Amino acid sequence: MKLVYLSGGVGGARLLSGLDRIMPAGELTIVVNTADDFVHWGLRICPDLDTVMYNLAGMAHLDRGWGLQRESFAVFQGIRALGGQDWFSLSDQDLATHIFRTELLNQGQTLTQVTSILANALGVRRPLLPMTNRAVHTVINTQDGRALPFQQWFVRERAMPAIAEVSLAGEMEDNPAVLDALQEADAVLIGPSNPYVSIDPILHGIQTLAVVRTKPCFAVSPIVGGKAIKGPLSEMMQSLTGAPASAQAIADHYATGWGLQLAGLVIEVGDHWQSPDLAVLETNTIMRTNGDKIDLARACIELIEEESAR
Amino acid sequence: MKLVYLSGGVGGARLLSGLDRIMPAGELTIVVNTADDFVHWGLRICPDLDTVMYNLAGMAHLDRGWGLQRESFAVFQGIRALGGQDWFSLSDQDLATHIFRTELLNQGQTLTQVTSILANALGVRRPLLPMTNRAVHTVINTQDGRALPFQQWFVRERAMPAIAEVSLAGEMEDNPAVLDALQEADAVLIGPSNPYVSIDPILHGIQTLAVVRTKPCFAVSPIVGGKAIKGPLSEMMQSLTGAPASAQAIADHYATGWGLQLAGLVIEVGDHWQSPDLAVLETNTIMRTNGDKIDLARACIELIEEESAR
Repeated sequence: MKLVYLSGGVGGARLLSGLDRIMPAGELTIVVNTADDFVHWGLRICPDLDTVMYNLAGMAHLDRGWGLQRESFAVFQGIRALGGQDWFSLSDQDLATHIFRTELLNQGQTLTQVTSILANALGVRRPLLPMTNRAVHTVINTQDGRALPFQQWFVRERAMPAIAEVSLAGEMEDNPAVLDALQEADAVLIGPSNPYVSIDPILHGIQTLAVVRTKPCFAVSPIVGGKAIKGPLSEMMQSLTGAPASAQAIADHYATGWGLQLAGLVIEVGDHWQSPDLAVLETNTIMRTNGDKIDLARACIELIEEESAR
Repeated sequence: MKLVYLSGGVGGARLLSGLDRIMPAGELTIVVNTADDFVHWGLRICPDLDTVMYNLAGMAHLDRGWGLQRESFAVFQGIRALGGQDWFSLSDQDLATHIFRTELLNQGQTLTQVTSILANALGVRRPLLPMTNRAVHTVINTQDGRALPFQQWFVRERAMPAIAEVSLAGEMEDNPAVLDALQEADAVLIGPSNPYVSIDPILHGIQTLAVVRTKPCFAVSPIVGGKAIKGPLSEMMQSLTGAPASAQAIADHYATGWGLQLAGLVIEVGDHWQSPDLAVLETNTIMRTNGDKIDLARACIELIEEESAR
């Protein structure tokens, strides 16, 4: 069974670690949000791509889910001492990725090519694709009337300003490699990522969306007991939909909002919700250990296989 | 007495540490070679400017004379692991300088402005000027017919290929701040740097050379007993002049070659040489300790004051 997995950063990367352990080679392609990307210190930073890449490479910090196991901040401290921007900290090893990526991009390689070079060097064997080769950016339009780039809102302003709208700036151009993978796919699995800032940008690709709509789609709800496991999602959902965060709101978002053929949703144990339109699986979606990741990955694959066999 | 000091990297920076300790504020302006500059990992590296800046900031490695006291190589190891270029190692703290400089240059600031920002942040109180704001490059034309950028020849090929000619690529544009400082100067002191690759590029500025020619010039010979204290200078002199390296060859280079009013030359004790055309001072020019640096700086200033009083 060929699966395309749509992912943001932390939550998406955790489940992916599980999928990576149990899926045969050649069956899994990962498409990652790049709308959080930004330029910092003149370097191209791809937070979600890197979180996913480091997780697949076994380099990620296991407890936090972001950043690296081995971290030092010599360059950051140096730039701070020089009077450079210090609102976003980058560890030394992570910085190697950004420096090398920026150099290769400036030489004219696409982000897809560069990501492949980086991932191969780190021993990642799954196709890891940015959603687009172009620079597009999530913009958070705040209720106090500002349009903030996502990282400014999320890191610099600590996700505090209330949200009026989330939009995408820049011309989203479908990534041909993503379209190829989707066309070959038997199903699409949407990770437990923030729909607004991690998954929606991927679906803003006009051709990407068109192909995804032809495939059975499955999603893992990032909502547990009305709250996001991590990050500002529940406040976002409340602001943007006017209703509390819930598994049902996630299903509505993808099925009604985007018109996807949502065939199944995996939700947290206790978040009882049933639907006549799709299969709902209640299981443990909070991934603390590697075992949790593998268990959830197995549950997802079983659900997809069952629903695909109907 | 207002002095403009022309400097390359290591040797020039050592004497400068001494000058910095003994000269009153406002009397010393430093003009530094930038023809060794290069772009590595997409970042603008200014080896001589940084060696001088770190020495003035008290951050330089005291024994080696280049690099920093505190060094780690986390980014370098990361980039090596990713398959990036690893023929030139950059320490983490040093890298902070290059990242921040590159960012500011890309924002449109001149190298003079950027150098001032960096130097101020590190507590350097002397005016520190790059010879030009433009990118010019020393090219080593080898006897086997190649034209190598200086760092490629010096670091990557370990200064091994025999030299046929040294040339400067790119359009040298005089730095207005350098011209201002020279016009106000009572004398010019040329540090114990490599004439071909450290001082000549500065003198390639047409207006710079014109003003330097109107001033009494002094130089410290980088040759000790027919050899350079450090670096490939003696082999270079032999190749380029057909004669052994000597204090006299240094004097000829500046007086005859460049037409400077060479009023004095400081040479190593035992390198006996006298000239009817200029004052020659024999003293210890090998600077191991801070005391050595201060002693040599005092000797230079005394020589300049004596000759200027005539």
